Amino acid sequence: MKIGDTAAHTFAVSDEIVRGFAELTGDRNPVHLDDEFAQSTRFGRRIAHGMIAASQISAAIGNTVPGPGTIYLSQSLQFLAPVFVGDMVTTRVTVISIKEGKPIATLETVCENQRGEVVLQGEAVVLFPQEIKG
Amino acid sequence: MKIGDTAAHTFAVSDEIVRGFAELTGDRNPVHLDDEFAQSTRFGRRIAHGMIAASQISAAIGNTVPGPGTIYLSQSLQFLAPVFVGDMVTTRVTVISIKEGKPIATLETVCENQRGEVVLQGEAVVLFPQEIKG
Repeated sequence: MKIGDTAAHTFAVSDEIVRGFAELTGDRNPVHLDDEFAQSTRFGRRIAHGMIAASQISAAIGNTVPGPGTIYLSQSLQFLAPVFVGDMVTTRVTVISIKEGKPIATLETVCENQRGEVVLQGEAVVLFPQEIKG
Repeated sequence: MKIGDTAAHTFAVSDEIVRGFAELTGDRNPVHLDDEFAQSTRFGRRIAHGMIAASQISAAIGNTVPGPGTIYLSQSLQFLAPVFVGDMVTTRVTVISIKEGKPIATLETVCENQRGEVVLQGEAVVLFPQEIKG
C-alpha cells in the first residue's frame, strides 16, 4: 500500500436499505421514513440516514483499501448535501499518508451522488494489518 | 432544548446485528464476521463494525435529543476501544452549545460498553427543527 492508492464503489440507497437500516439500528427519525413528515422539511422528501453513506466508507476500507483486517481509529464526517432515497452513492477512499514505522494510514473519504455532488466528506485514520505493507 | 439536555439508551450488539449490518451495508471485513480470522488479530475475537455504535449516536439524536426532524451536519468519531460481539453499548448525547439565532446545536456523543469503558467518542453538529426551540 502506498500514498495515492484508491478504491471506489457505487451503492444504491434504496427504500429497502433505508427501512432496513432503521429497523437494525432503531434510528426512526421521520425524515428517513415518513413521506408526509419529510414533505414539511427543507428537503421536501425523505432522505437516507447519514450513517448509511458513512457505512459505505467503512465498507470501502474493510473490503478494498487498505482491505480486510483494517481497524478504524477515527473518522470525521461532514454531511454536505442530502442523500435521497433512491440515490446512487459512489464512495471513494484514497490513502493520503502513512505513519513512518507504524501501520497507521490516513485516508481521504468522499461520497458523491449520481449528479456528481459531494454528499459526505471526511478523513479516516486506520490501523492496517501487517500483511499489507505500508 | 437547552445546553445540558441529555439522553441515553442501551443497545445490544448481538451477532444478529453484526451479520445484518454486514449484509445491509456490504462491509464484510473478516474482523467482524470470521471467528478464525479474528483470532489472529490483536483483539483475538470478532469485533462489531464501528459504524454500528456510530449509528446509535444517530439514533439517539433522531429519536430523543434534539429529536425527530433533526438533520446531521457533521460527526466526529474516535474509536477508542473495540466493541465485541455480544457487548451492551450505552450511548449518551448531550447538548454542549446552541448557535445564537440559528437552529444549530453541537452535541457531545459518547458510547460506553457494559464495563464502563468509552468505546466511541466524538462531537455532532446538527440542524434541529423549528418546533424544538433553541
